[in-house]
Amino acid sequence: MTAPPIVHGGGIAAAAARFGGKPEDWLDLSTGINPNPVAVPEIDAAAWHRLPDRHRQDAARATAARYYRTPHVLPLPVPGTQSVIQLLPRLVPAGRRAAVLSPTYGEYARVLSNAGIAVDRVDGLDAVTEAHGLVVVVNPNNPDGRFFPRETLLDLHRRVEASGGILLVDEAFGDMRPDDCIAPLAGDDRPGLLVFRSFGKFFGLAGLRLGFVAGPSAVLETLADGLGPWAVSGPALTIAATLMASDTTPIRHAIQQRKAALDRVLAGAGLVSAGGTGLFSLVEHASAVDLHLHLCRHHILVRPFDYHPRWLRFGLTPDGTSDTRLAAALRDFAG
Amino acid sequence: MTAPPIVHGGGIAAAAARFGGKPEDWLDLSTGINPNPVAVPEIDAAAWHRLPDRHRQDAARATAARYYRTPHVLPLPVPGTQSVIQLLPRLVPAGRRAAVLSPTYGEYARVLSNAGIAVDRVDGLDAVTEAHGLVVVVNPNNPDGRFFPRETLLDLHRRVEASGGILLVDEAFGDMRPDDCIAPLAGDDRPGLLVFRSFGKFFGLAGLRLGFVAGPSAVLETLADGLGPWAVSGPALTIAATLMASDTTPIRHAIQQRKAALDRVLAGAGLVSAGGTGLFSLVEHASAVDLHLHLCRHHILVRPFDYHPRWLRFGLTPDGTSDTRLAAALRDFAG
Repeated sequence: MTAPPIVHGGGIAAAAARFGGKPEDWLDLSTGINPNPVAVPEIDAAAWHRLPDRHRQDAARATAARYYRTPHVLPLPVPGTQSVIQLLPRLVPAGRRAAVLSPTYGEYARVLSNAGIAVDRVDGLDAVTEAHGLVVVVNPNNPDGRFFPRETLLDLHRRVEASGGILLVDEAFGDMRPDDCIAPLAGDDRPGLLVFRSFGKFFGLAGLRLGFVAGPSAVLETLADGLGPWAVSGPALTIAATLMASDTTPIRHAIQQRKAALDRVLAGAGLVSAGGTGLFSLVEHASAVDLHLHLCRHHILVRPFDYHPRWLRFGLTPDGTSDTRLAAALRDFAG
Repeated sequence: MTAPPIVHGGGIAAAAARFGGKPEDWLDLSTGINPNPVAVPEIDAAAWHRLPDRHRQDAARATAARYYRTPHVLPLPVPGTQSVIQLLPRLVPAGRRAAVLSPTYGEYARVLSNAGIAVDRVDGLDAVTEAHGLVVVVNPNNPDGRFFPRETLLDLHRRVEASGGILLVDEAFGDMRPDDCIAPLAGDDRPGLLVFRSFGKFFGLAGLRLGFVAGPSAVLETLADGLGPWAVSGPALTIAATLMASDTTPIRHAIQQRKAALDRVLAGAGLVSAGGTGLFSLVEHASAVDLHLHLCRHHILVRPFDYHPRWLRFGLTPDGTSDTRLAAALRDFAG
């Protein structure tokens, strides 16, 4: 028996079926995706028509290397981070355990466990031992925003690599603090460091299914071999090559403004922050379960957590109208 | 050591680098993709922005069930057939061998062999034995167009299923002869029958990376679990749901006309057919290697085969101008 799929954010259709309203009229704050997607650039006809050839992949990789500031590696494009999480079991040496800094994105432990690998959900880096052939740290972490500076991760990396293991740092929410990211240190001279990046969250284009992996070439080859040829669609490669080469400052500023606006609304309602990243805020509340239901009745979906019933994760509101709507719903909560 | 990647069709950039000319000025006949892509329908903003949710997947699956005429199963959307070829090793019971009707698309034997599975490249269905836990038949076959009627495949299926194995029929080139396809027979009452379909070839949208799998639900669940959630992009699901529900008769007629035109050009040049499907023609020629180089010098790329140096595969020409260009280049061949 494999573990059942995890309930992820984004279940607007299911929420609307239960609480009423048209899905498109709901305010979806259940994900960590930029709520104001960047305009999709023009896509050449060949991107749709032809198999995505080496030339198109190379162009996306070169642009990604500049965007992610990885001088030692051309990041590997993958059809979403999930696609390479699926391949992680093959990176764990036989007989070794995996450590996942927890709580975090649930798919890591689920996929590794389903492959028969013993997973330790550790709550601090000190709990990592030589038994761990793979160590997963989401940084900044989802959902609590816990963040480790580069030096701390490099110390951990040295320990993990010394025992022949791999430290995987998932920087899915790293785009808002590029100076703190560890991706630029990945490459062949650090055979035990692997970094996942997400394209869709920052650019607001999660439907594209696109991520990048930086790391030693041997590991990138293993992952590429596991995915097979033409794993990423032509339109995704083309859009990435265009948008990553564009000036992303306006996107960053807009996200910062939206994050500040969200936090003002939450603070105005007396809600206590339990962390967050540039793309979401985590709230701790004694009646979080009731608050979640209350917001559902106002057709606002936020993200609850089975394993932590006092937490709710709020994604960014897209505009001032949504701020007002969320503020009104929160004011109305008697919990 | 894993086997090196196979050289596939579509290497226009490499050919242009060697023989000159701009890649966009080459006539690419190296693939089996409809050379006249269907117009990409409008894509709603949410398809790009949001993770492709259950609702969007269900819509694509329902449309695919009508298009592929599979009353017993909602075909599973996958990011290209290649993505599920990558997962085939987990469908082979431990200790069993695989049989691949050969010659055919090379990725089947490559992926299975790399996973440590003994692969028999069989040249006829009689060579399939009880030792084979997985039998792969591409039907019609690429590149020689060899075709088995439903009844023959059902006989084979009964034999394979009786020994607890799976018959995989790859109908990537089946769209031009839907009445002969076996996909409609797939479902839970045939636990040993799995069918792969390709979306991109017939619709001319190979860059999308989209295929569908019909088969028993247990096997579809295994494949879905191997791919993980959100494996197919939102735009791909949306485009498929629109185009598969449209009247495909004009596409079919246009392909038939193009195929007839190509075959007239080939026959006019005295070339001997060695088979084909609705989307390509295979030529057998004593000087195929020289003919391939000759066409390259005319900036026309066709597909040679390492394992069969007398064969060349010609994809469909997109229009009459290309027919004239190909005919002129062939006339000029003194080989």
